[in-house]
Amino acid sequence: MREEFRADLQIVSQLLVDMAEGVRAAMRQATTALLTADRPAAERVVEGDAEIDDRYRHVEERVCDLLARQAPVASDLRAMITALHVAADLERMGDLAQHVAKTALRRHPSPAVPAELRPVFTDMAAVADRMAEKIGVVLAHPDATVAAELDSDDDPMDDLHKSLFTVLLGDDWPYGVETAIDATLLGRFYERFADHAVNVGEHVVYLITGEAS
Amino acid sequence: MREEFRADLQIVSQLLVDMAEGVRAAMRQATTALLTADRPAAERVVEGDAEIDDRYRHVEERVCDLLARQAPVASDLRAMITALHVAADLERMGDLAQHVAKTALRRHPSPAVPAELRPVFTDMAAVADRMAEKIGVVLAHPDATVAAELDSDDDPMDDLHKSLFTVLLGDDWPYGVETAIDATLLGRFYERFADHAVNVGEHVVYLITGEAS
Repeated sequence: MREEFRADLQIVSQLLVDMAEGVRAAMRQATTALLTADRPAAERVVEGDAEIDDRYRHVEERVCDLLARQAPVASDLRAMITALHVAADLERMGDLAQHVAKTALRRHPSPAVPAELRPVFTDMAAVADRMAEKIGVVLAHPDATVAAELDSDDDPMDDLHKSLFTVLLGDDWPYGVETAIDATLLGRFYERFADHAVNVGEHVVYLITGEAS
Repeated sequence: MREEFRADLQIVSQLLVDMAEGVRAAMRQATTALLTADRPAAERVVEGDAEIDDRYRHVEERVCDLLARQAPVASDLRAMITALHVAADLERMGDLAQHVAKTALRRHPSPAVPAELRPVFTDMAAVADRMAEKIGVVLAHPDATVAAELDSDDDPMDDLHKSLFTVLLGDDWPYGVETAIDATLLGRFYERFADHAVNVGEHVVYLITGEAS
């Protein structure tokens, strides 16, 4: 029974790692689509979200099946509940990558992001990518120290978000309200993506230590 | 055992109803704070979010305790998983009410919403309030038909969201970029609040019918 549970848990864990890789790839492609007005890349992200959603459902089904068959307790039960939370965060990260891609599509063939904002979005995307990468690592090899780092990994994202508003609210902002609205929402999508990565880190810390960070 | 489980389930259910009432009250107060620049109301929402978060943790603890002690299967297990999902949605709805309140605080004593946008935000808040009310009803008395209504209840929110952008992007928008940014984010907060209400409806439908809507 115990070994069977370990094997099942390993399958769930691999599904989560696959989801993390999927949402990381989605956000990378969405950023490419955004910054280079790459329509096929944007379309791939929008279409690919169904696969992330499918994996989410697989995790849920596996976990419910495990709970019903094995009735785990203590740390095994905690691992099941953590998997549900992590999968929900990853599913939402996929949605946010899709929102970025849809913004690129809505403005295509014009770029949704004007030249002045390309550096800040390039940097936000880099932070998001590093955090998504780290999620994949801690899901594959749970480590409370590395997982807890995600909290401070998010700090540059908050700084970038502030600097985005500094540009938008500068006296010399030349692009008008529509571009400011797009940039506001895009900033929110990257920031929320990072927030969910922080959540995943907290869930992994809780799983290992039994304590909320 | 079975009766004990029913009693425990009833406690979880009541916690969810309390959460739904709490987030409804929070969004009502946040809207008042927003539209009347009412600082004490805004502060109450910001401070009150901790109570919603506490209830979320209570639901989680109760559910984990129930899963460990009673090892429910089939529809009882589904009720437990549903409770976790619903609590997560409600917790996030509380955060969104808090975001609205914080926007009001950031602009206080100026109103964050100019006169031209008061009608659309009044209407968005009314839709949000009706949906939050309905959540409370279906959590107290699960009914798949009423729960499924939440999906179409959200349609006016989407229409209002579009009409918000029509005002913001009109040639005669006189308020500049900062007010447009606030309005964009506020629109997103109300829209997401309603999206989470739709999610709750879907979870309740799934709980009753065993089928995703």
